Amino acid sequence: MNTYLKSYLLQNSQILNNDVLKVDTFLTQQLDLTFLQKVAEEIYQHFKDKKITKILTVETSGIAPAVLVGLLFNVPVVIAKKNKRVTASEQQYTAEIFSFTHQKTYTIEIGANLLTEDDYVLFIDDFLANGQAALGMIEIANQANCQIAGIGIVIEKTFQKGHKLLEERGIDLFSAIPIEHLSAAGIQFKGDC
Amino acid sequence: MNTYLKSYLLQNSQILNNDVLKVDTFLTQQLDLTFLQKVAEEIYQHFKDKKITKILTVETSGIAPAVLVGLLFNVPVVIAKKNKRVTASEQQYTAEIFSFTHQKTYTIEIGANLLTEDDYVLFIDDFLANGQAALGMIEIANQANCQIAGIGIVIEKTFQKGHKLLEERGIDLFSAIPIEHLSAAGIQFKGDC
Repeated sequence: MNTYLKSYLLQNSQILNNDVLKVDTFLTQQLDLTFLQKVAEEIYQHFKDKKITKILTVETSGIAPAVLVGLLFNVPVVIAKKNKRVTASEQQYTAEIFSFTHQKTYTIEIGANLLTEDDYVLFIDDFLANGQAALGMIEIANQANCQIAGIGIVIEKTFQKGHKLLEERGIDLFSAIPIEHLSAAGIQFKGDC
Repeated sequence: MNTYLKSYLLQNSQILNNDVLKVDTFLTQQLDLTFLQKVAEEIYQHFKDKKITKILTVETSGIAPAVLVGLLFNVPVVIAKKNKRVTASEQQYTAEIFSFTHQKTYTIEIGANLLTEDDYVLFIDDFLANGQAALGMIEIANQANCQIAGIGIVIEKTFQKGHKLLEERGIDLFSAIPIEHLSAAGIQFKGDC
């Protein structure tokens, strides 16, 4: 993985416990756009030969990286919403997602007018852990009969369920910062000795 | 106002009734980044001589324009959250906001570590109508003792309460697309005859 991203994460994140990495000063509450542009560039390099037509993400924390990746591919970004909008009158593609963080199931939806069977979509999110949001997006892409080019992630906890679930489905998964082990002692990145 | 933005809006938005403009194919559910970059450039031109240190926004629809404006100013973007995060352990600045769209009051918050009294902030949002989110951000900026450089908006409905409320407070308000009147007959932009 990119050495800038590795040292950036070591310097700027904080380990709260074995499951939770505090990244709110650069990825969730505050966005460090220089860091996120490097991440977007890594994701772009991985998928650049695919004929991506749209970037998909789920609100909220996926939006910023999705926008930066979208700028590189020069394609629109489609945001799956967690709550119905006042103007949501048309048909929607929907999926149920269980959030381990909030311990509840919620519905994500995308207007059916925003995805067509000619679309070749790249799903972008800030985190991959249990993979539930990613599976929800795959379900929505299937409803729309569009093709999935792959999934690009800012930070992945490869030791959690999501990685295997997506691998089993043959999805091209790329994570700019893949974390293999997280403990009070530190962060171990995938590929480190 | 910018003629590209005016014709873009006329071609791509849909009037649902006198209050609601449907913009989900380019601003809320799907993001047209070319359009949003033009908007960001207009906002940047208005505020470029101010020494902005941070862009502020409120999740969700403000994030994309805030990121694009942040890239032009080369400063971080801070996102006020509507729900407490699992990692939100520190002190927070908070404000109550009443949403006319959803007819409910919610709390927005920003980690107290993310704003200092040396900050000179620009608040960015997708819409300005009743100005409640903007007033909430002003309240948070006051709690942090930081200065407000101004407010940059993608689409403003100048005939609603927000414009006057912000003007009364002496806020430098710039809207890329100011709409003076909205009816089934069409959209009238501010400054049009």
